[in-house]
Amino acid sequence: MGRMLIAAVLALAALPARAGEDDIVLRGMGSFHVGGRIAEVSGRPAREIVRIPGGPPSKLDPNGEFMVEQMYVQYFLPRHRKGKLPLLMWHGGGLTGVTYETTPDGREGWLNLFVRKGWDVYVSDAVERGRAGFASPDVWPSEPIFLNYADPFERFRIGDGEGSWNADSAKRKVLPGNQFPVEAYDNYMKQTVPRWLSTDKAVVDAYLALVDKVCPCVLLLHSQGGAFGFKVAEQRSDKIKAIVAVESASAGDVGKAAALKNTPTLMLFGDHVDQHPRWATYKKIDLEYAAAIRAGGGTVDVINLPDIGIKGNSHMLMQDKNNAEIADVIQTWMVGKGLVE
Amino acid sequence: MGRMLIAAVLALAALPARAGEDDIVLRGMGSFHVGGRIAEVSGRPAREIVRIPGGPPSKLDPNGEFMVEQMYVQYFLPRHRKGKLPLLMWHGGGLTGVTYETTPDGREGWLNLFVRKGWDVYVSDAVERGRAGFASPDVWPSEPIFLNYADPFERFRIGDGEGSWNADSAKRKVLPGNQFPVEAYDNYMKQTVPRWLSTDKAVVDAYLALVDKVCPCVLLLHSQGGAFGFKVAEQRSDKIKAIVAVESASAGDVGKAAALKNTPTLMLFGDHVDQHPRWATYKKIDLEYAAAIRAGGGTVDVINLPDIGIKGNSHMLMQDKNNAEIADVIQTWMVGKGLVE
Repeated sequence: MGRMLIAAVLALAALPARAGEDDIVLRGMGSFHVGGRIAEVSGRPAREIVRIPGGPPSKLDPNGEFMVEQMYVQYFLPRHRKGKLPLLMWHGGGLTGVTYETTPDGREGWLNLFVRKGWDVYVSDAVERGRAGFASPDVWPSEPIFLNYADPFERFRIGDGEGSWNADSAKRKVLPGNQFPVEAYDNYMKQTVPRWLSTDKAVVDAYLALVDKVCPCVLLLHSQGGAFGFKVAEQRSDKIKAIVAVESASAGDVGKAAALKNTPTLMLFGDHVDQHPRWATYKKIDLEYAAAIRAGGGTVDVINLPDIGIKGNSHMLMQDKNNAEIADVIQTWMVGKGLVE
Repeated sequence: MGRMLIAAVLALAALPARAGEDDIVLRGMGSFHVGGRIAEVSGRPAREIVRIPGGPPSKLDPNGEFMVEQMYVQYFLPRHRKGKLPLLMWHGGGLTGVTYETTPDGREGWLNLFVRKGWDVYVSDAVERGRAGFASPDVWPSEPIFLNYADPFERFRIGDGEGSWNADSAKRKVLPGNQFPVEAYDNYMKQTVPRWLSTDKAVVDAYLALVDKVCPCVLLLHSQGGAFGFKVAEQRSDKIKAIVAVESASAGDVGKAAALKNTPTLMLFGDHVDQHPRWATYKKIDLEYAAAIRAGGGTVDVINLPDIGIKGNSHMLMQDKNNAEIADVIQTWMVGKGLVE
């Protein structure tokens, strides 16, 4: 018996992948693209280009078939799964899935934190953002927009509204008690990407393809991702089992909100929302949509973080210094909704 | 003694993160952006835009300071590290780090395979690609180029050269014995992204910043990434301890190749290279560069995969059906160079 136990101890100790308590143990990780369509371009002149200095010339034909309007998804599947459904994290405007990765100041983001909590997490780049790629002017006639340094600082409740940005960091007017890691604002700006104002339908279509591929699921939506997420959920209410909307920048169609009667929803808001007209407007839209869901027989919980004693959160709550605390608020809500084993 | 052993067995069994043999066990994973500069734009008219239909209008100011020319990096650090140095995977033209993730037909890519071999792997998106973002026409005056469906098929030795593409898949002329997963060519096209022909210096500058942040290291370069990688290695030869160049599409500056005298290099080529003038030209450039490294006292090994019995590889070797076999060829070379514990 003693010998058998020794053998058992040795067998356990010899397992190739022993993990420590802080390790992330995955049964799988990978990525894919989903959605998209073929666009045809014709009648444009071809030309010779040199792709790499010193290399041979080759033909560039701007005509033909192009793959456009696909989106990118990366997934991480923990060995010890506790979330009953995949958790899909959708980013906001001018951003990519990087929103949920390491924070600008180098802490773990919600991707890691929710994988550690046992969720299968799918982080994506919407159509036109990041690894989704974007289409040529022959396919999308409008121009992309670009964010200057002042824009997110003043608009995302990092600084105290318009005029709060200054190139001299000592002169920036940060909102009092702000949780955003302002010292890493340069890194945050590096995460921003151009966006178009004309691609909403394509974005929604690709999200629908994603939902059809990996759901039933829970959606975690941020900002512009909320507007897309609610529209998608109205069309796939059987597959969206819960929604966490983090400062959703507008919502779905009030007339279709009843579709979410079986989709419990959490709306989460940071600090200083009511004092900033832009966010007060979006919040009003969100709450009207929440009322419409309730009128249709559904349930919506609204958490204003300052009301539960969590102060100073910017619009980028998942990157704020207390992002782990907010992740716990969301996790507690999901546990309460029976979404965790 | 028996009781102590039982206790020991129970203690081992109770560890929170027990991993199975196929699991990926990470001591950390995350991402960051690196490099970049602030570009100033002035004198352009501001306008009002509505960012999200139904939302409040806001000012879009195309003037100001913009963060441009940064790059994106994602890293995976295995618990049981065996590679002595970080392994940096740099993608080719019109592509992103997705090159190294799940293959278009859903198998594990070199990212997963080398993490499983115990390497700290850093997969990146070069300046202007994917999650690196791109700059406005006010900063980069030239237009990006876009790849149509025929282009990589005919150019990357998937099809048999020019004219081999056909929109009707039954009429496509695939190279005989080709290892590329042609049935998933749609998914491959979804991975392609636009690129510019004018940003080479910015790309190299960001790669230099990456090397300064995470090296000493080993570089694994593909295609256009080879041209960038050798240029970077010439300037940071103390930090680049080995190079694996997978069908490098041109190389560095022959006059500076001697800088690599202490950087053992492997040049790897797939099948049908000599019969396709484009790739024969690049190979000639690579071999001339290899000769210059050797003349400077360095060592370069050249493996033509067909010469060692590995046939049918396209330009996208890391996605070909036998990608695991080629990963093993690279691993064996790295072991031979003393890069593995």
